[in-house]
Amino acid sequence: MFSLVIASQLFTSIFLIIGLKRVLPRYRQAMTVAAIVCGIAAYHYFRIFDSFKAAFVTDAIGGAGDYVQVAGASFNEGYRYVDWLLTVPLLLLELIAVLALARKVQTSLLYRLIPASALMIALGYPGELTADNGMRGIFGLLSTIPFAYILYVLFIELTKSLDRQPVSVRRTISQLRLLLLLTWGVYPIAYLLPMLGIDGSDAWVGKQIGYSIADILAKCLYGLIIFHIARMKSFADDPAFARMELSVDEAEEVATPTNPRGK
Amino acid sequence: MFSLVIASQLFTSIFLIIGLKRVLPRYRQAMTVAAIVCGIAAYHYFRIFDSFKAAFVTDAIGGAGDYVQVAGASFNEGYRYVDWLLTVPLLLLELIAVLALARKVQTSLLYRLIPASALMIALGYPGELTADNGMRGIFGLLSTIPFAYILYVLFIELTKSLDRQPVSVRRTISQLRLLLLLTWGVYPIAYLLPMLGIDGSDAWVGKQIGYSIADILAKCLYGLIIFHIARMKSFADDPAFARMELSVDEAEEVATPTNPRGK
Repeated sequence: MFSLVIASQLFTSIFLIIGLKRVLPRYRQAMTVAAIVCGIAAYHYFRIFDSFKAAFVTDAIGGAGDYVQVAGASFNEGYRYVDWLLTVPLLLLELIAVLALARKVQTSLLYRLIPASALMIALGYPGELTADNGMRGIFGLLSTIPFAYILYVLFIELTKSLDRQPVSVRRTISQLRLLLLLTWGVYPIAYLLPMLGIDGSDAWVGKQIGYSIADILAKCLYGLIIFHIARMKSFADDPAFARMELSVDEAEEVATPTNPRGK
Repeated sequence: MFSLVIASQLFTSIFLIIGLKRVLPRYRQAMTVAAIVCGIAAYHYFRIFDSFKAAFVTDAIGGAGDYVQVAGASFNEGYRYVDWLLTVPLLLLELIAVLALARKVQTSLLYRLIPASALMIALGYPGELTADNGMRGIFGLLSTIPFAYILYVLFIELTKSLDRQPVSVRRTISQLRLLLLLTWGVYPIAYLLPMLGIDGSDAWVGKQIGYSIADILAKCLYGLIIFHIARMKSFADDPAFARMELSVDEAEEVATPTNPRGK
């Protein structure tokens, strides 16, 4: 599972870097951030992979046995939190960047979203470390407050700015927000698994699988949708660019729907 | 903490390299130096990470125990000083390069700043190695003399040249100097921790955390601000470039404030 995440993040990152020229310069900043997010995640999953390998060995020859913990070694969950501390604010930045809103609106959104997202991660970590389910619950709850605030900003405040987006991407942007809500919602579920009576190693494995799948959706799939939005906006902004990038049939289709800015 | 620094330096470096085209060619030298600085730091933190792993092991099963030193192995603080010896002069170079001053002024500033910064690092190292707090204090003091000279050049001499900068970046340049002062101020504090009665492994861990955070701020954040200054100067120099790089809304805003050179 960890190896699947490494492959997904690393090659999404490379794909996005190679794809930079497939969008107009004004959307390349958002694409770069998307590539960096996947790159940072790939790095941390290399560490997570190695940490797992150092912490556990199979107790049977041939590898079909159970994994047992190596004396003196432990799996370091800290890599995940460092990863999220860096990437979660960047995920919000890449969303705001691809919208290419007025500078003042961007700044105001980011000044609220980025501290809230860092707070959300920082408050989750003490709950992750503790074996006490009560503490886990309290920090989980505290961490939910900034999460709720982020959702409020994205789904209420941001909506006002969406009517300035080309018609062709409005639906995709809404879907992207929904993806963010759904995938970010997986993390608290994985986080809470140890509290749901699913105990011991099963809960631990379930948590790792949950985090891994959520990381692939929230970073790789999310980055690819950002790429798609940047492409659509590039075509809407510059029909000559669309004709160069697309086949004749495709370019016609992109040009046909009403693509004016504003209402 | 060391892994956080690796991720920060490595991906800031990659971000700056990918972002080269987001500024005019005349500012790419400064960006390249900024990327190289973060790259050098990432390399040294890989060494520091490995040096730590080789020098310490946890003494308890399950990993909750303390770290104890491995017999015959020791953590090599030398990597930090080699890193600083290379990167600190480059940090000053990148500041001077992004200002794009007249060639004569640049040369004169660099001939004074670069030897002073190398001297500052070289004088700190003997104090770092010694267990004797008296020696630590003396070399700390000696190292402060070139540091004070650098601050004199940056805050007094350089100020004369700042009125040639576009209005839009003057405040950011002042903030950058302040960041340099504040982050470079963390190093002597971390350096002096062993003298402040905070002893043994706590002082050592505190020192490592202090150096790590200071390295992230002084190289990554600093490099990103250099990038921001280079972008703003590019837009002020060339409105056509700004229109290509920014959305219609953003480009209007950048063009609106009075951006003339001179007072």
